[in-house]
Amino acid sequence: MAETVRMTAEEVHGLIRRVLTANGFDAANTEAIAANMGGAECSGAASHGLFRLPGHVRAVAAGKASGQARPAVSRPAPGIVRVDGDRGFTPISHRAGLAPLAEAAREQGVAVLAIARTLHFAALWPEVETLAAGGLCAIAMTSSPPYVAQPGGTQRVFGTNPLAFGWPRQGHPPMVWDMATAAMARGEISLAKRDGHGVPEGTGIDADGRPTTDPAAILEGAQLPFGGVKGGLLALMVDLMAGPLIGELTSLEAGAEDPLPGLTEVSGEIVVAFDPARLGARFDGAEALFAAIAGQEGARLPGDRRTAARARIAAEGVAVPAALHAEISALAPGG
Amino acid sequence: MAETVRMTAEEVHGLIRRVLTANGFDAANTEAIAANMGGAECSGAASHGLFRLPGHVRAVAAGKASGQARPAVSRPAPGIVRVDGDRGFTPISHRAGLAPLAEAAREQGVAVLAIARTLHFAALWPEVETLAAGGLCAIAMTSSPPYVAQPGGTQRVFGTNPLAFGWPRQGHPPMVWDMATAAMARGEISLAKRDGHGVPEGTGIDADGRPTTDPAAILEGAQLPFGGVKGGLLALMVDLMAGPLIGELTSLEAGAEDPLPGLTEVSGEIVVAFDPARLGARFDGAEALFAAIAGQEGARLPGDRRTAARARIAAEGVAVPAALHAEISALAPGG
Repeated sequence: MAETVRMTAEEVHGLIRRVLTANGFDAANTEAIAANMGGAECSGAASHGLFRLPGHVRAVAAGKASGQARPAVSRPAPGIVRVDGDRGFTPISHRAGLAPLAEAAREQGVAVLAIARTLHFAALWPEVETLAAGGLCAIAMTSSPPYVAQPGGTQRVFGTNPLAFGWPRQGHPPMVWDMATAAMARGEISLAKRDGHGVPEGTGIDADGRPTTDPAAILEGAQLPFGGVKGGLLALMVDLMAGPLIGELTSLEAGAEDPLPGLTEVSGEIVVAFDPARLGARFDGAEALFAAIAGQEGARLPGDRRTAARARIAAEGVAVPAALHAEISALAPGG
Repeated sequence: MAETVRMTAEEVHGLIRRVLTANGFDAANTEAIAANMGGAECSGAASHGLFRLPGHVRAVAAGKASGQARPAVSRPAPGIVRVDGDRGFTPISHRAGLAPLAEAAREQGVAVLAIARTLHFAALWPEVETLAAGGLCAIAMTSSPPYVAQPGGTQRVFGTNPLAFGWPRQGHPPMVWDMATAAMARGEISLAKRDGHGVPEGTGIDADGRPTTDPAAILEGAQLPFGGVKGGLLALMVDLMAGPLIGELTSLEAGAEDPLPGLTEVSGEIVVAFDPARLGARFDGAEALFAAIAGQEGARLPGDRRTAARARIAAEGVAVPAALHAEISALAPGG
């Protein structure tokens, strides 16, 4: 086991705030990002927690994103809330746009939040979880950078293009899931390369477009969507809806002139919220389905692992790799 | 090769009309179903063409569905068009609801069509294709009957739960796809059983919940979603959105007392339409992505095969298996 540093939730959030403040993020952006990133770290989602902090600092230092964004909200149609993200990370745009989206969905029955000019460098579930906690059913999608090929093709065309879904429950935390349409997270492929083992067939192709299980060859070549052709259809839908549909870039366009590995041009996110009350929802039918799933040995409901991790981390704190802790601490000298 | 009967598009539509009319379907329902089913047959989608005709007749004869449905349209919220399908097949509900949905989407930016008390026994792409041909981006979902297990579980909980997507293009037919969230169509598994060959791993499990490649064991047991756990998340989303979200049954509920193989209680469909014009869409970005996909050897755009099949069938007619043709012709004696 690598060495770790144990931190309380309060220490995690405090460290994120100090680092962002020391690196040109203003108070509003710092608060929004710290709540999102600290929340991910303290929900067991380490890959979207402190691990992302150096990337935030790097993106602002390189001029790819703003730490002082002031998103602008407009309402171009009764069912559309539009946020110009002002080149900031998405959490500050969510603070501006999620409440108007929820209000529009309750008024209209359904509404879209279209966020433009933003850098989505976080987990996708917090926004659908926020909406579902407020009683709405929600879908979110974002795209870029381009790492994934169309099945059958040889070139990178899609981002890892995640899709998230939230369902409100009565007397329970919302049912929430979030998945990349890529077969495997890029970080996991990098870990397999470091540790010298192969990855499953279907994870990716080499630079010549040939199927391979060699993680190094895939990182040079292209990842593949999960589930073959069908996953590719979803990746295409996400790319179109989080990009061109709302006037934003495709993954291909956002990554075309990428000067920083993993950081693309600011681009879009789409969130769709549905009001179950206006749609005549039957929550008992959903609960019966959840009970049928959770009652089977071997099956579990999406999000159960996250709920358990939250309780554990609230009680015991979270173990952060010592190397990451040192790297981050160095970004806030004297903090 | 099995013996076939070659039919023109006109003959296909005429045969469907005669059979429905001879079996208790009124003129409006007959016209709507014939256009949908004949359109599928003449687009190369034989599994949703004439092949479905005996099932329609059987469902009405068994009192599971109505051939004289008069769907009722309401507008419970500015962004919601609701159709009570009156126990009819979906095409007559589409005739009632798709135009008001398109109008609502253009007014509001986004709108939902919630169809209740309907039997969706057809391909899912015609509705999104219709909307996309009118300039809208659209998603459709429907559920039931329950044939599919949650990955890791042992019991049937989901329908094959298809999802369809349509994207409008300028100067081209819309880009349209339609996929089951099940790994393999049930009909294909039946064919593998008949022909005595196995199916790929991940297609399904036996009645004890064990993975198997034996099609007969899967038909007795349960199918699996495509792409493992991630496909299961999608199947769950489709089940919730086409069911409880709009006040309708889950696949599990719809199939709970199924007296006819493959025919369930009438249940729901949800269609969401987005107006690209109100969302500030960039069609050029989408076209650049399509060009990047279609320009690669081995990759193709979804729907290209359907467009090619339509042209071929319009010129040459369609080859219908002689046994199916005889079975159907017997349903319209003297026709």
